[in-house]
Amino acid sequence: MPETTKLARTVKLNNGVEMPIVSLGCWKIPNDVCANQVYEAIKLGYRSFDGACDYGNEVEVGQGIKRAIDEKLVERKDLFIISKLWNSFHHPDHVEYGLDKTLKDMGLDYLDLYYIHFPIAFKFVPVEERYPPGFYTGKQDEEQGKFTFEKVTYLQTWKALEKLVEAGKIKCLGISNVRGVLIQDLLNGCSIKPQCLQVEHHPYLTQENLIQYAKNQEIQVVAYSSFGPASFLEMDVELAKSTPSLFEHQDIVSIANNHKVSPSDVLLRWATQNGVAVIPKSSKPQRLLQNLHFEDKLTLSKEDLNKISSLNKNLRFNDPWGWNNADIPTFA
Amino acid sequence: MPETTKLARTVKLNNGVEMPIVSLGCWKIPNDVCANQVYEAIKLGYRSFDGACDYGNEVEVGQGIKRAIDEKLVERKDLFIISKLWNSFHHPDHVEYGLDKTLKDMGLDYLDLYYIHFPIAFKFVPVEERYPPGFYTGKQDEEQGKFTFEKVTYLQTWKALEKLVEAGKIKCLGISNVRGVLIQDLLNGCSIKPQCLQVEHHPYLTQENLIQYAKNQEIQVVAYSSFGPASFLEMDVELAKSTPSLFEHQDIVSIANNHKVSPSDVLLRWATQNGVAVIPKSSKPQRLLQNLHFEDKLTLSKEDLNKISSLNKNLRFNDPWGWNNADIPTFA
Repeated sequence: MPETTKLARTVKLNNGVEMPIVSLGCWKIPNDVCANQVYEAIKLGYRSFDGACDYGNEVEVGQGIKRAIDEKLVERKDLFIISKLWNSFHHPDHVEYGLDKTLKDMGLDYLDLYYIHFPIAFKFVPVEERYPPGFYTGKQDEEQGKFTFEKVTYLQTWKALEKLVEAGKIKCLGISNVRGVLIQDLLNGCSIKPQCLQVEHHPYLTQENLIQYAKNQEIQVVAYSSFGPASFLEMDVELAKSTPSLFEHQDIVSIANNHKVSPSDVLLRWATQNGVAVIPKSSKPQRLLQNLHFEDKLTLSKEDLNKISSLNKNLRFNDPWGWNNADIPTFA
Repeated sequence: MPETTKLARTVKLNNGVEMPIVSLGCWKIPNDVCANQVYEAIKLGYRSFDGACDYGNEVEVGQGIKRAIDEKLVERKDLFIISKLWNSFHHPDHVEYGLDKTLKDMGLDYLDLYYIHFPIAFKFVPVEERYPPGFYTGKQDEEQGKFTFEKVTYLQTWKALEKLVEAGKIKCLGISNVRGVLIQDLLNGCSIKPQCLQVEHHPYLTQENLIQYAKNQEIQVVAYSSFGPASFLEMDVELAKSTPSLFEHQDIVSIANNHKVSPSDVLLRWATQNGVAVIPKSSKPQRLLQNLHFEDKLTLSKEDLNKISSLNKNLRFNDPWGWNNADIPTFA
């Protein structure tokens, strides 16, 4: 390794695998800067990358990884590469197909962690027709602004994923955007227990019971959108625009000032001190370092932690209800 | 029939069966008055009775029904009898066993509607050991104040119930205390779609998305605890005691006064005008009549309906989280 970079600490998942507590979130990293950002992140000490088919930049994530490996900054085994199965590939016949496309795009032969992105099964779309398919479930549906769904249960998709773990293509499995009652039902039917649960999590949406339940079940919780509304401003989400920024919230700012750190340090530390891993995204190198090393900069008091948690308003910015005017009951 | 009694109107379920929009809720009707109350209710025009294994009064409900049939007030086919599968009988090997006990206690050979009471699978308890089993999952568990669960998925239990429909022991199937994401998953795996969804529903817990989703799927929503906190006072639920009564809420009282009806009439009518069936419980004959005929007494304006719906606080009184200090994620 060309320079000494301090890595994020790791947590041991329920299958014994070690995962960094901080990953670089790849959602919304623009394609033109993505390969370089991933490469720079590895240089700075990032080892884990949270991507997804749906983010539309897996080719570029793979390019950044390849360059770092080619330059012998790291070996593949030092990295923890994450992706997510998109809604269009939930049918057991298409789960491996979806994974293979991701692996091919990234130039990898296995993933460290693969999530089911949403508990929503869309009609299959071949990669030649549209990739990533996003909200597309066919030409006619697109014209009519609607979805066609697939009659596939969550457990059927999960069982197909379990086979890919056995085949060595995936090391760890995860679930995302699910409520406790579906986790419980999955646990009652699965052979391989999920290692991770990735959910929206910030002081406006603390989900304490859900997180407690996951902990009890030895499932590592991973937060997305740790900064709350800020993560949704660029997507022009009305609710995000009308909600006070957490970066400017007086309680967060005051705690940050007391610790001589930034509000984002406080928000990330609040998560990890609650046992929740984080995946901050950044497109700026300076921010990359800041988001990797916040754990060394501060430890929040019990009082601080409670004060931050008390900002909860059960405010969810990422809700499939209303996608294409469809009533998708993920959080209903 | 000895006297002219006006019956509640019926709604057509997704399998063509007609269900009265008002049932007598049998939860918490004391055993010593239950048989007579059911008998009196039939006399007054009730045709539907919402019971459950867990309510511990199915023998008495059956006695009331039998007396009314013996006295030729009604025939069995005129009645709509409802029960619920308790948590202890979720394993496919025990579903019929649970139903048979209910049928035997009530002296019936079929039910009109059978719900899964909760999406929670407890360890099986034979009826000789404890009935209804309630929170009991074994002697040792009881001593330690804990539960043993059964590794059974919701769909496995459902499939066992579907067989009992085919066998003619159940006319309609229902689900209860479930969130949208589990309903969606069930719909993706079931052969027989649920006819009804019974959930806690009152102006403090309007659950508009859930109800919209059920309507889209042609599942009839049935409200329990339509009066909100009042339903939980006798159970000494702290949250219910500290929440302002809906009967005394100025918006409800003012709407009731304008229509010259009681607050309970307003609360029930608000539900049925939103397409939601109701199951008010009462132990007093006078209240029985009032709760059966509220639909004739008033029609709320769109403005009234919205005003009542705007009282929503997502306040849930019946949450399995914390039962026996277990973190049960039904609503997490």
